[in-house]
Amino acid sequence: MTAITAIDGIEQTPALVVDREAFAFNLATMAEALPGARLRPHVKAHKSTGIARAQAAQSHRTFTCATIREVEVLAEAGLGDDLLLANEVADARRLGAAADRHGARVTVAVDSEATIDAARNGGVREVLVDVNVGLPRCGCRPEDAGRLADAARAAGLEVRGVMGYEGHVVGRPDRAERTEKVAESMALLVQAAGLVGGDVISAGGTGTYDLNTWATEIQAGSYCLMDTAYGELGLPFRQALSLVATVISVSPKYAVADCGLKALGMDHGSPSMEAARVLFCSDEHVTFVPDEPVQVGDRVRVIPAHVDPTVAYHEVFQVVDAGKVTEQWPVDMRGW
Amino acid sequence: MTAITAIDGIEQTPALVVDREAFAFNLATMAEALPGARLRPHVKAHKSTGIARAQAAQSHRTFTCATIREVEVLAEAGLGDDLLLANEVADARRLGAAADRHGARVTVAVDSEATIDAARNGGVREVLVDVNVGLPRCGCRPEDAGRLADAARAAGLEVRGVMGYEGHVVGRPDRAERTEKVAESMALLVQAAGLVGGDVISAGGTGTYDLNTWATEIQAGSYCLMDTAYGELGLPFRQALSLVATVISVSPKYAVADCGLKALGMDHGSPSMEAARVLFCSDEHVTFVPDEPVQVGDRVRVIPAHVDPTVAYHEVFQVVDAGKVTEQWPVDMRGW
Repeated sequence: MTAITAIDGIEQTPALVVDREAFAFNLATMAEALPGARLRPHVKAHKSTGIARAQAAQSHRTFTCATIREVEVLAEAGLGDDLLLANEVADARRLGAAADRHGARVTVAVDSEATIDAARNGGVREVLVDVNVGLPRCGCRPEDAGRLADAARAAGLEVRGVMGYEGHVVGRPDRAERTEKVAESMALLVQAAGLVGGDVISAGGTGTYDLNTWATEIQAGSYCLMDTAYGELGLPFRQALSLVATVISVSPKYAVADCGLKALGMDHGSPSMEAARVLFCSDEHVTFVPDEPVQVGDRVRVIPAHVDPTVAYHEVFQVVDAGKVTEQWPVDMRGW
Repeated sequence: MTAITAIDGIEQTPALVVDREAFAFNLATMAEALPGARLRPHVKAHKSTGIARAQAAQSHRTFTCATIREVEVLAEAGLGDDLLLANEVADARRLGAAADRHGARVTVAVDSEATIDAARNGGVREVLVDVNVGLPRCGCRPEDAGRLADAARAAGLEVRGVMGYEGHVVGRPDRAERTEKVAESMALLVQAAGLVGGDVISAGGTGTYDLNTWATEIQAGSYCLMDTAYGELGLPFRQALSLVATVISVSPKYAVADCGLKALGMDHGSPSMEAARVLFCSDEHVTFVPDEPVQVGDRVRVIPAHVDPTVAYHEVFQVVDAGKVTEQWPVDMRGW
């Protein structure tokens, strides 16, 4: 059926819904594969201390962040045992302040003299040298990593090791190709690690969590909620995130529900729907062709193509057990 | 130059920046073309009572909304003289409550018996019959509009007239084609208006604000901030919105700044940059080829492709006069 059974406790739509059973399955599956600090969960995928706490309860007490805000909120929430900002910053003062204020351990990525200076001037004590392993984004050349590590140590910083994100590999649909490409990327990172020293090799994502055997810790985040893009890779994780929308208009050829592109990250394209074909999204609407007739007021389920920018539009996750909202997790790490 | 002069008062990036001069020009230009209630500014483009107040100061005291939250926040801010929710809702109770609590005038779009029932049951007193004028989304068939108006009146609702959004027309790059298509759409809406009665014909957008001479009021919103998509139409409005980002990594072939797809609506594609070519965006990064060399810490300017979903990611507009932030407007109508 296109219309779903009403979920007790969902008053307003679009609602960001987490299926507790699928979520718990994903967390348990990952914790078995990568227990404790073998996983450094990336909070950018969910931006919620509620989910970070669930990950911590699964033995993962180290976290990966993409923004200063994420570091600040985790530190304030008492989840600051070991926070990595896996990104460069030109001004690290808020990081140093968060570490001091909350007694958190904060490590930041550096890939240049300027970001080393920023770390030192901001009062951050520990860094990882970020190495470009093939994604055209941040990271130094592998052959420059040792020189940067020396510069960081000369600046009084503790160099814990290296990181290098194979973001150009994690989404490749063919597993054999992913395997081959992750090996190429990690050969570069291991080379850099030898030059840098330290005991951390941080890398990986949901698409390579079980293929990347070179990294000492994997920075996966999407695994806990999943999306349609990762859903195509044949991973053992279940779709735990959906948007529940309300049908607001019905015509003979299509219907419209109240879940548009302000509720959905659209960079991977349109969302999918259960038992319906999506035609297009506008600001607050999804126009779709339902497999079975729907009526105004019916609830329908929309699956985002890309979890991270979808979540960033929402204020709260509605956690659903057996057709009922039993908990709410604020999306409390939004913004910068 | 690719790097911009530092703006005094911008501490954190990505920052959503409004150029006060361009913004004031846009508001004055529109107010001259469509004074007072001839424009019903659509707040979905900016979601800010700060901007709505500026529009009200330009003689526009009627507003168009896309969400219940937008209606609630405007009503609470004392901007509730005449609020139109130009969208169907299956549950209008929050609308009726907002009208009662704040003494606001709230009108809602209806296109079915079910949405008429929702309006009445929610305590809303006035409606517009929403007519499909060619965009495959909400709205009844023109020939059904009179029947729905009768049903609404029978339910005790005041029917103020019709609305019909030519959303399939507003973005067409060729002005002659836009002119022709808006005439086709408005022929349908005028036909429906004759069946419905009332004195409101509400339609239009930034792309048709001066072409749609059939509507009694135009629902334009993007004109005040603009984006690259509307920028291609040769309209007399200036680009007033940009994102200021900080360069965090530089390599020989490209550079990276901290403005990614969680700061940008991506449904119209990648953003543009001043004096640079955008390669791609990831969650918190834009990778670009600068025309002139940049350094870590430099500020750069990013122009979003689609204003509405961009703004919805941000907490606040930084209003800049002559290189300095002089005011902040919270994006206080986000969410639902």
